[in-house]
Amino acid sequence: MTPSVLEDLVLEGISKIVLLVLDGLGDLPNAEHDWKTPLEAANTPNLDALAPRAALGRILPVAPGITPGSGPGHLALFGYDPVETTVGRGVLEAIGAGLELKPGDVAARANFCSLDGQGVVTDRRAGRISSEICARLVERLKQSAARIEDVEIVLQAGKGHRFVAVFRGTGLGGELSDADPHKEGKPIPPCRPLAPSAAAEKTARVVNAFVKRATEVLKSEHPANAALVRGLSERPRFPGYRERFKLAAAAIAAYPMYRGVAQLAGMNVLAVGESPADAFAAARAHWNDYDFFFIHVKGTDMAGEDGNFAAKVSTIEDVDRALPELLKLEPDVLCVTGDHSTPVPVRGHSWHPVPALVLGRWSGADRADRFHEKTARAGSLGTLHSKDLMAVLLANASRLDKYGA
Amino acid sequence: MTPSVLEDLVLEGISKIVLLVLDGLGDLPNAEHDWKTPLEAANTPNLDALAPRAALGRILPVAPGITPGSGPGHLALFGYDPVETTVGRGVLEAIGAGLELKPGDVAARANFCSLDGQGVVTDRRAGRISSEICARLVERLKQSAARIEDVEIVLQAGKGHRFVAVFRGTGLGGELSDADPHKEGKPIPPCRPLAPSAAAEKTARVVNAFVKRATEVLKSEHPANAALVRGLSERPRFPGYRERFKLAAAAIAAYPMYRGVAQLAGMNVLAVGESPADAFAAARAHWNDYDFFFIHVKGTDMAGEDGNFAAKVSTIEDVDRALPELLKLEPDVLCVTGDHSTPVPVRGHSWHPVPALVLGRWSGADRADRFHEKTARAGSLGTLHSKDLMAVLLANASRLDKYGA
Repeated sequence: MTPSVLEDLVLEGISKIVLLVLDGLGDLPNAEHDWKTPLEAANTPNLDALAPRAALGRILPVAPGITPGSGPGHLALFGYDPVETTVGRGVLEAIGAGLELKPGDVAARANFCSLDGQGVVTDRRAGRISSEICARLVERLKQSAARIEDVEIVLQAGKGHRFVAVFRGTGLGGELSDADPHKEGKPIPPCRPLAPSAAAEKTARVVNAFVKRATEVLKSEHPANAALVRGLSERPRFPGYRERFKLAAAAIAAYPMYRGVAQLAGMNVLAVGESPADAFAAARAHWNDYDFFFIHVKGTDMAGEDGNFAAKVSTIEDVDRALPELLKLEPDVLCVTGDHSTPVPVRGHSWHPVPALVLGRWSGADRADRFHEKTARAGSLGTLHSKDLMAVLLANASRLDKYGA
Repeated sequence: MTPSVLEDLVLEGISKIVLLVLDGLGDLPNAEHDWKTPLEAANTPNLDALAPRAALGRILPVAPGITPGSGPGHLALFGYDPVETTVGRGVLEAIGAGLELKPGDVAARANFCSLDGQGVVTDRRAGRISSEICARLVERLKQSAARIEDVEIVLQAGKGHRFVAVFRGTGLGGELSDADPHKEGKPIPPCRPLAPSAAAEKTARVVNAFVKRATEVLKSEHPANAALVRGLSERPRFPGYRERFKLAAAAIAAYPMYRGVAQLAGMNVLAVGESPADAFAAARAHWNDYDFFFIHVKGTDMAGEDGNFAAKVSTIEDVDRALPELLKLEPDVLCVTGDHSTPVPVRGHSWHPVPALVLGRWSGADRADRFHEKTARAGSLGTLHSKDLMAVLLANASRLDKYGA
């Protein structure tokens, strides 16, 4: 459904929707665990009690066979087409580093590198310096390159040779090439506008001045004596939950990436601890202030990435144990799902569809005995694109008008 | 998913993919066979052994309710959108006749017809002359109309009044109208460019000269004393497997149509006999030379067209009997499916979804007891568009990068 058709149908309402995202929830039957998935193997009496009354199904984050990163995975859950709604690499990196981006900011991935006497890049990763050295060098840059023209430059050290640079000032933006040769044996190319615009020209000028100043500041350092800047991208300006869905939305997420993507979607980000119980307590504390709660649980994804079946089961059981606190709030619509699969055998994100449970007054009751990949496969929701899930939640919340007479 | 998004994610790899296509595989439950389909009724111990470890599902060749021809059916399996990627009728006819098309060739369907003294078409099919007469007349044309201007004209007789003409030379192409009135009682209209271009004008001029020369050559023949030319189309130039998927692809197919469509997709076509055992032996002989093997089995479709349940069962059993030879090669990803359904009761191609089995390290194990239309319906792959199957196979072969951060 094209966004404008959906958005034209959105009604004001007083119903409350909870989208509970267990990151990387989807998994594969595991030969070492009696062909069960972690969700199937977990002891989940509270989810089991919901399953018979709910509609089950599966969601496809991007397209068949496509493994999404966290950005596209969440944008799709939030009702944005993850292919049309692109967020630049620099912006995702900045968000992931916990930097708060303001409208008009241009963010970039950056890293330290090694230059020889002729200005040729001899090592794009500066010998993979430690995070400690990176932090010290970023501090040096902060002292000498915190402002160029009228542009503030916000820097944050990352892992190893990596850091993030945010350019904040008026009239920045546009499409820009990287100040990065992308291979050794070449000098650092200047950042150039990819399409002519005053904003792109100003940004390129500032980026190039920043790279030049970094080379001056780091002259006596070894092996990290210069910086590369790539993935320059403007904080995207797409309509948020309030404009699109007439929803006051809150994000309850402990990790920067998810807080950042939720912020891009116009959600208010709430302070929260890491446990499911903390998250549900935050929902309770702010229950009257919002119509929509996105609650993010990270542990399932981390366990999947680690190939740790027991840890994934345990995180799911933690969520299940805390669930009654959330249910006491009596959300009108509750959805439990994931942003993508992170199967234990894969040890990483994957393309497999993700189980989803939707419970509401009119969700339908699939009468499934439990909620897991296999019951979801046979559920009444069928297999949806993740980006279409929001419409289903809005419908269940009586927040969508009829289309046509 | 737009093609460029997918293609941007494709990684180099060393994994091997086998796409085993049983033409027209899908079928309907048959009242005379205890409501079983041929795939269900067949004795298939080897497929049965794969089924529990594989992901099952169904593929939809074009769209719900749409019955595909062999061209669109295979283009979709090969990862091309069968609606956007059109192959002209003339090209399909030439390919189907086993003619090898070179880039720049323009191919056409042609047939003999009857003209009266005033040049009016009195029978568009020349009284449906026999294939023998057709072959003799095509030989006459070859002697007198093998070259016009600098254009070589390759002719090949077909069934009854039909033949194929390929125009080969420099600067041919464009959109062209038919030299065919499409009904009796009218003269043969000249072929005309549908959009102005030097290539279209040259091609039209050569086609019209060919039609004129045919009328002269066939003057004394009866009833076939002229020729009609239609469906003029240039060999399409779309990116092939190497460019799109970084795959060295081989086609193992005995019939011209499938060899031709595979060639359009940039596959190398291998010589092969007609039996499944021959096909698998060819895969073994060339196993180290390719990353991707398309193996085509025709018998299932022919049996379906004939309404012959037993023959369809028997072809499936032939494939199953030979299967261990293929499995010994240990493909990283094996997919068994069809290009469309050819149900025995329908006696022709149909629109019904086609069962598909995907087996690989991370395919997931649906634990189905067997592979057939009913287990496929409940499988974890769900129902995919055929054009999206390639992404799933690439993902299973670890040949797709993550989309977004």
